This record gives sequence, C-alpha cells and structure tokens, in this order.
Amino acid sequence: MGEFDLIERFFTRPTPRAVLGVGDDCALLQPGAGMQLAISSDMLVSGRHFFADTDPRGLGHKCLAVNLSDLAACGASPLAFTLALALPEADAHWLEPFSQGLLALADAHGCELIGGDTTRGPLNICITVFGEVPAGQALLRSAAQVGDDIYVSGTLGDASLALAQLLWLRQHEGGAQAAQPASAPVLLDGADLARARQRLEQPTPRLALGQALRGVAHAAADISDGLLGDLGHILQRSQVGASLDCAAAFGLLAAHRYSAGAAALLGRTELRSTVLQHVLGGGDDYELVFTAPPHLGAAVQAAARTSATAVTRIGRIEAAAGLRLLDAQGRRIDAQDFHSFDHFTAGG
Amino acid sequence: MGEFDLIERFFTRPTPRAVLGVGDDCALLQPGAGMQLAISSDMLVSGRHFFADTDPRGLGHKCLAVNLSDLAACGASPLAFTLALALPEADAHWLEPFSQGLLALADAHGCELIGGDTTRGPLNICITVFGEVPAGQALLRSAAQVGDDIYVSGTLGDASLALAQLLWLRQHEGGAQAAQPASAPVLLDGADLARARQRLEQPTPRLALGQALRGVAHAAADISDGLLGDLGHILQRSQVGASLDCAAAFGLLAAHRYSAGAAALLGRTELRSTVLQHVLGGGDDYELVFTAPPHLGAAVQAAARTSATAVTRIGRIEAAAGLRLLDAQGRRIDAQDFHSFDHFTAGG
Repeated sequence: MGEFDLIERFFTRPTPRAVLGVGDDCALLQPGAGMQLAISSDMLVSGRHFFADTDPRGLGHKCLAVNLSDLAACGASPLAFTLALALPEADAHWLEPFSQGLLALADAHGCELIGGDTTRGPLNICITVFGEVPAGQALLRSAAQVGDDIYVSGTLGDASLALAQLLWLRQHEGGAQAAQPASAPVLLDGADLARARQRLEQPTPRLALGQALRGVAHAAADISDGLLGDLGHILQRSQVGASLDCAAAFGLLAAHRYSAGAAALLGRTELRSTVLQHVLGGGDDYELVFTAPPHLGAAVQAAARTSATAVTRIGRIEAAAGLRLLDAQGRRIDAQDFHSFDHFTAGG
Repeated sequence: MGEFDLIERFFTRPTPRAVLGVGDDCALLQPGAGMQLAISSDMLVSGRHFFADTDPRGLGHKCLAVNLSDLAACGASPLAFTLALALPEADAHWLEPFSQGLLALADAHGCELIGGDTTRGPLNICITVFGEVPAGQALLRSAAQVGDDIYVSGTLGDASLALAQLLWLRQHEGGAQAAQPASAPVLLDGADLARARQRLEQPTPRLALGQALRGVAHAAADISDGLLGDLGHILQRSQVGASLDCAAAFGLLAAHRYSAGAAALLGRTELRSTVLQHVLGGGDDYELVFTAPPHLGAAVQAAARTSATAVTRIGRIEAAAGLRLLDAQGRRIDAQDFHSFDHFTAGG
C-alpha cells in the first residue's frame, strides 16, 4: 500500500446521497427531477491564497467554504464535491486536521466527497462542488434590473483588515510588532484581531440565505474579490449601473462592534478612508451581494430572518452605466481611490 | 483588465449544450431525463506527470484525454468540463498552444468548457469532467463475474517504453545519447521513438468503445497506472481473481509493428522480460481493460467494430483470489517480477 493510499483514508466517507462515490473511474450523481446541477471550481495555492503555515483545520474549512459560497450565490443546495490535492509530502500531522476541517463543513451541509485525485507536488488544493437548483431558478449575475435595491449580507472588511495586519506583522517580525508605528495599517488588538482573523480563515458560506432568496432576488454574486469588484461583475453582465451609499457600507464593518478600543481606532478620521477601502475593496469575506425589486423588500427581510442572516440595503441599480459612490450627504466620492482585491496582482 | 482576464480569452468558448457556461458564480448543467452524471477529476503537476518543457499543445490534449478516459471506462458520453490552472506566469506563447490542444480534443467530443479558475502558482492543471450515462448502465469496476473473459483495447506498453527512453536520454544528455550502451533500457530509433512518444503525450480516450460496451461488458477500467494495477482494481472491487495469458499480452505491444529494427530489438530474448514489464506494468496508455461473459463474445467484437477499436482477449475472471500470469504453455510466471506504475513512487 502506497503512502497516498493511507492519505486517502482520511478522506474516505460513506456517500449515501451519491449513486457511486470514491473508488471507481467516475463518481455517479443523479440530480432530482427538474433540477439543474450548479458547478463551481476553485484552486487554492500555498503562498498565494493562504500562508504556508496556516492552521490546516481552518484551511480545510476555507477550501470548501469558498466553493460552497459560489453555490450560495446561485441559490443552489450542496450535493457533493471532488477534491484534488497536490502535497509536497504525505504528512499525517497536516492531513488529519485538514481533513477534519474540510469534512466537518461538508457534513454540516450534507455535501459528500465523491472523488478526486492525490499527487505529490507543491501544495495545491482544487475543489469542484456540485449543487442542485430547480430549473430556471438559479440566481444569476446577469439578472439585475434597473430600480432594484442592492443588498449585502452580514459584514464586510474584517477579513481584509486581518490579512493586511497579518502581512504587516510578518514583514516586521522580531520585535517591531509590539509597537504600533504611524506607518502601520489599522492595527487591532489581540482579541479583536482574532475575531477578524476568524472571518478571514473560516468564512461562512451563506447557503441558507441564497436558497431563501430564490424567487425573491434578481441577481446575486458572492464577495470573494471585494464588494466593488463583485458588484461590478453583476453590473457588467446585467448591463446596468448603480449608486452605492458609502455611509451604509461603512456600517457593514463588523470590527466596529468589537472592543471599545477597535471602535475608537476605526473611528479615527484619518483612518476612515483606509477602513472604507477594506469594506468596499477587501476580499475574502464570502458574503452575498444581491439585488431585488423594492416591492419585494419585505420578502428579502423574511429571507434574512428564515436564514438567520442579516442583510443591509446599500444602494440601487440604475440605467446609467458605471458605479457611483455617494457619501452620507449624497455627494459623489472618487471611485479611483478604491480598488478591488485581486489575487493575481495582490501579494499574499 | 488584469493579466489573467486576457488568459481567459484563450479559453472562453460558446457553450450551447450547457444551461450556463463561464462567467457566473456557478455553471449550470442539466443531464437528460433518466441520465446519471459521471464525474472525474485529475490533477497534473509539472515535473511529476509531464516534463516542464513538454510541448504545450500535446499537454493540453493529454490533460483532457486522461479525464475523458475515465468517462470512457464508465461508458459515459462527455458533456462538459471545468479547468483550474495554476501558472508561474501568464505566458501567451505557452497558453495559446495549450488551449488549442485542449479545445481541439474537447470540440472533437462535444465536451464544453463551462468554468474553472486561474491563479498564479507552480504549474498545476486540474480538470473535472462531466459525462452522462443512462441510469444503471454505467460500467463499474465492481461488476466483474467469475467466468468473464478479460479484454484490452488497442495496444499497451508504448507510452511506458517512450517514457523510460526519454528519462534515460535526459539523464545522459550531452553526448552519451548517441551511443547505446549495454545498461540502457530498450532503445527505439528516431521514427519509432516518435510513434511511441505520440502514445505517451497524446493518448486517445476510448469513448466510442466505452459507450458501445454498455449492456455488453460487465466491469471496466481505464489503464492509467498499468494493466496489472488497473485490472487489480477490478479484481479487488469485484472480489474475484483472474488468469492472464502473457503471450497474448505480449502481442499487445504496438512497437512490434514499428520498423524492422524495433521488431528485431524487441524480439531479443534478453529484453523480453523488460518489454513484458512495459506491457503489463507500464502506465499512461489509457486503453480500456474490461470483462464480458463468453456468450457475449460476438457482441464485444461488434462493439469493437462499431467503435473502430481493436480489442484482444487476454484472460479470464476466476473465483480464486489473486492474479495468475501464465506463459504460452500455461505455466505460472512469478508476478513479483512485475510492478504497476505508480505516479507517487515512480520518478518523472
């Protein structure tokens, strides 16, 4: 028995919902009658999407969470996934917690591991996830309509805030991190950083909300690359524009609700622009941005209640192309100041 | 527009069969009524599954071919695939031929690229392929029955022969490759090596044969890791054993049919054991090994004719566990001499 046969034991589970699971040339899946299969694939690379020394349990969770978040954005229910894994070595001390984090989230959503591949190579995790959605009911990026309200689930910016701080701390390892020099980014204290970091490393896919929004929302996308970027995808594919209320967006930052110290820090006038950049441009939050017609506002709130997920109205879809950022007084803010997070051009 | 948006242009094609293709959070696919979805995922890593300087057009072909081969082994018809790609850099000179090789094979089988992911990282290609098969008709590894004949499609051993020679030539680069020392493996001449190499680098997935074998074959698998290894999977999952006619297996080596020089070389008595190891244990041929009851022998040959794919009977399924190798006189050969190709333990 090879080293990698042993590894596969960490990942072999019963697959009662799939027709055929791990161990044959193919897995077999049968969506329910009248259902369409929603499919998404994400590849996470060490040193780019996560630090090489990231806690493997959290990493297992995150790899699947980012894929489940794509199902959520379509309003699909999870069915199954495949896992392809390249590993520098077969290290049980890494694989066991990784598989535990991965499979705990999978079990929580009834999402079965039905196949995949394992090989030696630089650490690379590629998951393809399958969900089902009633034919014609998937929430699409292309379905926004002029007059729609724009909503965001949960909170935004904490993952990005945590990442910026972790990167800064790593760059100043060995003494400097105790101090907080003027050139540093917004720096949260220990417990506040831990809360923000939890958002970065173990995001919550908004599956219940996505499903509750079927028949209510028009367009939806998950926020993996930043609100401006992902809302931009909706605008582009729907051939519409939008105005965004930056004051409402600023209220989305959960870090406000941390300690009094964090609230004071984030309230500092000279930092507000930086903080707003995290909220509007920061990636990795995996909340949903969606649009719905004003007359379904009560239905949106009902979907939020049944899924126990807060939603905040932050803007409106308009016919004029482009995205207009407005301050609390309704004045335009220059969008050039905010950039969407891009895994390719950004470090990390 | 980022560097990777440009890359995606190489891979963006119309997807008339899919409900929704590239560009949303998920792709949407709807298998036909009464159909099951067959799913397979393979990850290919530079330096392990292919040389870093491999011709990108052939590599594009091979990445999809190995996945289509899994569909063939199930008797499934290709529908679509996702491509996740980690690249050290966005090099159009590499990406254009890679996408051409990939999409030419995809088009030949009506297999649509419906989504995926692109990121920077050590070269890694992960494809997940989707096919459909009428419910209950998939060919499974677990379905072999005592008394079944064992067949192999096409020819075996050439890919492995080519790989061994290419590895040897690389180890002896810079002068020594002109000579043919006694310690070298079986060495084919230029045109013969090119033919064998074609089998290694651009394998042909046996899709038509796999589909023609629905309702005829019992068990099937594709030969990616070597005949002994992949037949072993069938035996293990079907809880049966088998006898293999090594003389018939030796006849599977296509290199016999190359030049007179190759035929003479491969006929040399002292090399026969080495050659047989390539046939029985060599990977990367992507032929099918399958079993069928003797009374359906004519139906097997009819499936071979309709799919224009040669098949050769090489053994029989037996109740006694284990795999017995027999020579032309029906005498046992020690199986310990032959080892299945293993991507993890093998070099390359």
